[in-house]
Amino acid sequence: MLTLFGVGVVANVLLARTKGRGADWLLVSFGWGLAVFVGVFVAWRSGAHLNPAVTLGLLSSGASEYAPDVPVTFASTVVYLVAEMVGAFVGAVLAWLVYRKHYDAEEDAGLVLGTFSTGPEIRSHGWNLVTEVIATFTLVYVILQLGNTPTQVGPLNVALLVVAIGASLGGPTGYAINPARDLGPRLAHAVLPIRHKGGNDWGYSWVPVVGPIIGGVLAGLVSQVF
Amino acid sequence: MLTLFGVGVVANVLLARTKGRGADWLLVSFGWGLAVFVGVFVAWRSGAHLNPAVTLGLLSSGASEYAPDVPVTFASTVVYLVAEMVGAFVGAVLAWLVYRKHYDAEEDAGLVLGTFSTGPEIRSHGWNLVTEVIATFTLVYVILQLGNTPTQVGPLNVALLVVAIGASLGGPTGYAINPARDLGPRLAHAVLPIRHKGGNDWGYSWVPVVGPIIGGVLAGLVSQVF
Amino acid sequence: MLTLFGVGVVANVLLARTKGRGADWLLVSFGWGLAVFVGVFVAWRSGAHLNPAVTLGLLSSGASEYAPDVPVTFASTVVYLVAEMVGAFVGAVLAWLVYRKHYDAEEDAGLVLGTFSTGPEIRSHGWNLVTEVIATFTLVYVILQLGNTPTQVGPLNVALLVVAIGASLGGPTGYAINPARDLGPRLAHAVLPIRHKGGNDWGYSWVPVVGPIIGGVLAGLVSQVF
Amino acid sequence: MLTLFGVGVVANVLLARTKGRGADWLLVSFGWGLAVFVGVFVAWRSGAHLNPAVTLGLLSSGASEYAPDVPVTFASTVVYLVAEMVGAFVGAVLAWLVYRKHYDAEEDAGLVLGTFSTGPEIRSHGWNLVTEVIATFTLVYVILQLGNTPTQVGPLNVALLVVAIGASLGGPTGYAINPARDLGPRLAHAVLPIRHKGGNDWGYSWVPVVGPIIGGVLAGLVSQVF
Repeated sequence: MLTLFGVGVVANVLLARTKGRGADWLLVSFGWGLAVFVGVFVAWRSGAHLNPAVTLGLLSSGASEYAPDVPVTFASTVVYLVAEMVGAFVGAVLAWLVYRKHYDAEEDAGLVLGTFSTGPEIRSHGWNLVTEVIATFTLVYVILQLGNTPTQVGPLNVALLVVAIGASLGGPTGYAINPARDLGPRLAHAVLPIRHKGGNDWGYSWVPVVGPIIGGVLAGLVSQVF
Repeated sequence: MLTLFGVGVVANVLLARTKGRGADWLLVSFGWGLAVFVGVFVAWRSGAHLNPAVTLGLLSSGASEYAPDVPVTFASTVVYLVAEMVGAFVGAVLAWLVYRKHYDAEEDAGLVLGTFSTGPEIRSHGWNLVTEVIATFTLVYVILQLGNTPTQVGPLNVALLVVAIGASLGGPTGYAINPARDLGPRLAHAVLPIRHKGGNDWGYSWVPVVGPIIGGVLAGLVSQVF
Repeated sequence: MLTLFGVGVVANVLLARTKGRGADWLLVSFGWGLAVFVGVFVAWRSGAHLNPAVTLGLLSSGASEYAPDVPVTFASTVVYLVAEMVGAFVGAVLAWLVYRKHYDAEEDAGLVLGTFSTGPEIRSHGWNLVTEVIATFTLVYVILQLGNTPTQVGPLNVALLVVAIGASLGGPTGYAINPARDLGPRLAHAVLPIRHKGGNDWGYSWVPVVGPIIGGVLAGLVSQVF
Repeated sequence: MLTLFGVGVVANVLLARTKGRGADWLLVSFGWGLAVFVGVFVAWRSGAHLNPAVTLGLLSSGASEYAPDVPVTFASTVVYLVAEMVGAFVGAVLAWLVYRKHYDAEEDAGLVLGTFSTGPEIRSHGWNLVTEVIATFTLVYVILQLGNTPTQVGPLNVALLVVAIGASLGGPTGYAINPARDLGPRLAHAVLPIRHKGGNDWGYSWVPVVGPIIGGVLAGLVSQVF
């Protein structure tokens, strides 16, 4: 659901002849925030894990459970990470089906890739990594703090947090802040028979994986102190 | 209320000389999301049914009641479906009254029809159907999951879900995701004495009816598994 | 607070050299919705009455109290209506102070009046009245229904309702939906020493007073049936 | 977190070659509102103080505690004010790191300063002060009233309040409404090695400090009456 909605909103803004074409960054920010919102409701049973950076952040925070009755073990961690990646891949494929005719109509291969995975506006692997680390740190750290505020609006809070990250910290790299969100759709882009397809930008692909993992683990460690 | 507000927001964006003319897709996405929000509050007593795809999704999920003290029977199902269609028709007529002078002033018959019912940007009945099936599946499946999260913000959650669907999955077909929302206003368009009126696009009209029904029923069936 | 924020957001969008100049209808819709949100919190003690149409709607719904320990009487009704009008006048004066230099810089008298009170895009007193009646009916009717849904997010619900009305039904007349919101600032416009000021459009001024009152009273009466 | 997200959203809208460049005032309003939202969650343990105007407003309202087990004393007040300023400074530095390459690419020194601290569109210290006083009064007064409405959505309410202030009252001066939010990033701008940097506009810098303090203290005093 996360990447179905997330890839979908970018496709709506970028691809040829869609109804949302040309809408601005606020639509993208809300679209991804609400993609998380929808994903959280669907994944409630497993603790709403959609993001390896959050899973690893929870691990590094010293938590004992990923969800009620799901203890943190090596096996459960692997299952969560694999499931997040598989889900992100499948969601991107579904989004491609939803926008199938618009992918056919779009001739700019850069825009096509941009609907699947993130890319920096100014390419600088070091600084792009800094951006992803800080952005993901805020995501995971705030999620870990949310448990301290009694609330019935948890999914909405997380959604608005992601809207905030997109609006405020997404300008340089397009805020992957989630290795599965970036790598899963990138793999989908690589294997799908898209008409006007270019390269997969593998040279950049490690940044939105490594950056979020560093940020998430850091947030978990810091949360043990505060 | 659903189609009064929903047709209204599209009229505000599309028709000549309105205050909202030219606003972008985000206004449409929020407008329809909040149209559902308003509709849910008004229809609380009957379980907030506004959409045959949701009603049939609930039916196929094996639910025993549409609302407290309203058991699922053949008769209650028919009453719900007919009421949804009648309400959608009446709402579109009211929206036409609200924007009466702007309908008179708008000379583009395509825009006029576009305020009442949906139409694809790239016409391809098969792929348009895929889009409506997937979009409606997400709507009904998430609504069925919402019951698992204790909350006092149910109407807001549904509203934001519809904003998400509009932002992310609405680009190709304008997201009917509700047979009554599309067919009711299309019938209103057919019978109202609108000055610059063109055809009703009956050739496409089955897609936003059949697609949402398939998506909704699928969601109900899948929810029995997960 | 209601008209301070409401006049403020329109001033931000319309007046010369503001930071929000040229933003679209979504900002206006959210601005007025959140103006109500703020007003509700400040007026909680008196039952959050900001709008004569709501007050009269509550009266016609047969309610016995305007707020806890405030019974519905002729005297309390008059006090509420007068206070709503005085508050709307004072708020508009404060908004004028906030945007003082921008009012000085704005040479289009029509835009200046447009920040204070509403005006139709297509002048037709009859149809403009229909628009205001229907829009206010939805406002008051839904507010009266909100009491049936247990919630802690009442102010947010009302705010989003007003966003919805703005987005969907505000296109023709600018949605007064509140006699005090329109007449109070119009009086402020009449008496303030604004540099580039034109007429007060008294010829139209009865529409956004009479329309909302009719709509509100109708909603109260209808709510006795449903 | 407040200034990391707040400076970030303005950087996203203003700086060269970001993904959000050219988005309108609504993105800025939501960005700062959600910056407060994020900040409140992170600062929950100390009572979510992010703003000297709120701290001093609470002081002048006669409150006895800043947070559970944190009595209002001279020492605690100084600690809060200093911490708010230090946090605002650090957040601005982090935002600069996130947007590092875009700060390098932006050649307009006015835009660069505009991402850090506020500045008026029409320079008039007296009227700019009035704007900041009124805007901050509404902020602090409504926050003090929020305690009277039982709610679990406190952080969201405050966030939406700040969105409202931005949308409605932010047009003339860019709504500092917080001395630390303005002075902390301005100091960061002064010391950071930014490539295309101009002056720090110290001549205006007292307005967004003095205005919010006056507004906040006034709100605290008035809240003792109502």
